[in-house]
Amino acid sequence: MLNFTYDIPTRIHFGRGEIKALSGELETCAKKVLVVTGQGSVKRNGIFNDVVREIKKAGIPFVELTGIKPNPRLKSVYRGIEICKAEGVDFILAVGGGSVIDASKAIAAGAKYKNDVWDFFTKDVVCTEAVPLGAVLTLAATGSEMNSYGVITKEDTERKLAFGTPLVRPVFSILDPEYTYTVNKYHTSAGIVDIMVHIFEEYFSAPPTAVVQDRIAEALLKVCIKYGPIACKKPKDYEARANILWAGTLALNGLLGNGKSGDWASHGIEHEISAIYDITHGVGLGIIVPNWMKVVLSKNTLDKFVEFGINVWDVDKDKGKEKIANIAIEKTRDFFTALGVPSKLSAVSVPQDRFRDMAKGAIESYGQVGSFKKLSEEDIVKILTFSL
Amino acid sequence: MLNFTYDIPTRIHFGRGEIKALSGELETCAKKVLVVTGQGSVKRNGIFNDVVREIKKAGIPFVELTGIKPNPRLKSVYRGIEICKAEGVDFILAVGGGSVIDASKAIAAGAKYKNDVWDFFTKDVVCTEAVPLGAVLTLAATGSEMNSYGVITKEDTERKLAFGTPLVRPVFSILDPEYTYTVNKYHTSAGIVDIMVHIFEEYFSAPPTAVVQDRIAEALLKVCIKYGPIACKKPKDYEARANILWAGTLALNGLLGNGKSGDWASHGIEHEISAIYDITHGVGLGIIVPNWMKVVLSKNTLDKFVEFGINVWDVDKDKGKEKIANIAIEKTRDFFTALGVPSKLSAVSVPQDRFRDMAKGAIESYGQVGSFKKLSEEDIVKILTFSL
Repeated sequence: MLNFTYDIPTRIHFGRGEIKALSGELETCAKKVLVVTGQGSVKRNGIFNDVVREIKKAGIPFVELTGIKPNPRLKSVYRGIEICKAEGVDFILAVGGGSVIDASKAIAAGAKYKNDVWDFFTKDVVCTEAVPLGAVLTLAATGSEMNSYGVITKEDTERKLAFGTPLVRPVFSILDPEYTYTVNKYHTSAGIVDIMVHIFEEYFSAPPTAVVQDRIAEALLKVCIKYGPIACKKPKDYEARANILWAGTLALNGLLGNGKSGDWASHGIEHEISAIYDITHGVGLGIIVPNWMKVVLSKNTLDKFVEFGINVWDVDKDKGKEKIANIAIEKTRDFFTALGVPSKLSAVSVPQDRFRDMAKGAIESYGQVGSFKKLSEEDIVKILTFSL
Repeated sequence: MLNFTYDIPTRIHFGRGEIKALSGELETCAKKVLVVTGQGSVKRNGIFNDVVREIKKAGIPFVELTGIKPNPRLKSVYRGIEICKAEGVDFILAVGGGSVIDASKAIAAGAKYKNDVWDFFTKDVVCTEAVPLGAVLTLAATGSEMNSYGVITKEDTERKLAFGTPLVRPVFSILDPEYTYTVNKYHTSAGIVDIMVHIFEEYFSAPPTAVVQDRIAEALLKVCIKYGPIACKKPKDYEARANILWAGTLALNGLLGNGKSGDWASHGIEHEISAIYDITHGVGLGIIVPNWMKVVLSKNTLDKFVEFGINVWDVDKDKGKEKIANIAIEKTRDFFTALGVPSKLSAVSVPQDRFRDMAKGAIESYGQVGSFKKLSEEDIVKILTFSL
């Protein structure tokens, strides 16, 4: 196990009706709130009304930023920063999924920075101050509700990059499984894939001696495998929605990653795709990951895939190691397919003509792509080609 | 899954050499420190020297309270409170295991309370202020390093009771696996049993729908089962010590208990025993728990024991349910025995003559003993008699 600092102070209010905690939270830390939302679903399904009721209960004025898109754009971040500065906002409340929370984090950092917020993504600039923020989560997927990271796309240059600072970790997040009831099957599935890939990125990484983390990773994967299909079939199954929601938060709050090196190659590659083609993040990951597994499976990585096969997919221990590893990879692919997410890039209208650019772009953005196996440009092209 | 608030702000510095974080932590929050230690082991093995070096690096004066015993006594808590008041202590640093940390928590609460600190244990008094504290952990067992609870014994009345408030949750804890290298086999084993029983108290409780929590509980149990025997045989095995240390912290920081009801009957019974006979907490738990399992196994609880048998002890799924449950209980007992902890109360000189008093005492102290199965006085006497 590597040394680590575990410092996860986000307060989580989890469960049915927990929106009631919002007014109390805001009373302690906000004088003027910017409420950030996505493309209108929270206004249609009543969640926004619940939020407004609580803000009013706290007696705090608020302004709005609406229309944050999936793969949130830098342009909307700039808009949010302007509002914060013009309106004297001292607290940001993200009401939505990962895109809304990530955009809110960039706004939070940018509102207290005198230069261009994009510096945090592209330059070695340390964020020293940010507007505090909280979240009301409406989609099980991101993990952003309890971590320090955000991903933003700069459309004109086709770059999708991450930044992180503990200053943008939400002070609190409200997780009501019922708030995810109206998420459609497509996005429910994509969210589950996203959660599982977050776990993979941490699970398939050195050192093999962080066994607490790896056994917990397997535990959360089993929750996704058990409840994913149920949530897709019965969108109002509280038990399924609750377990997936909590698994998604724990998958990327540091619990699995602390003490390990992390891989993050699949995310690096997917960001290159969705920066250009604007596909759903979880869908892109679901297409890439089984092929990433195929490419990184080698003598050096075999034992980890065997562990994965036996502990997660219940593959018979007595089969040979290579067989176990390959079965595990195919079971992963089959599970994603059964959830109903597209399994080919061609199915989401991503052609092969820019694969080489994407491979170069990933290496340019991340310096090194992957640590479980460091990927070459050729490896990335191969993964993308297998994914076609 | 029950609704819950997850709010665990303790910062953990985990790994070899992490004592180096101490001076920085103290600089931000302490002007005068009370260092609380146990019966001298930290002075013999060099940990105390490391701590003093860091305090001096921070340039902060400190005073000492030494001699905290296992099953920490109220008397020593009073002594600590006096020192805090007399010396103007504004930060408490516990250097030791659960007893030292628990005593420090009671001192922290008592130093800011105008009446008797024992009120927090026996009356419906809410703690509103406490001296902040941190911990340098030297034993994998307690969980106290990352939670809000403490247990203290009032010798003259033979009562051992718990109290809790978020105000005594350590601000930070330093967990260096190498600091547990010198723990002898007996206390290493007892610590591992303590960790496992903390997990059982949460795992064997309603509702069965908190599956994230239960899969993680099984993950941590597997870590104990894998590394417990290794840590006993090879006390300087970093991997074993690290995984057990981190499992012990996660076992009782809220991760497993949030969203569940908890049982805590075994702890209730053990506290009655050790309040009178001063036995090692983990040893008492290890003797009681398999017999608690025997007594609570019924048609209502069978499925949970089956899950336990299959997921934790790899019992063959195809055996009948009752057989799986009983095998799981015997495997638990055998594991504790193989670790070398005593398996009978008679082996630790606890006679049966006060079993009835203990049963009454547990019910008096806790109102209800157990929730997985609510135990009657007869049930408790039966568990104790089986444990003889």
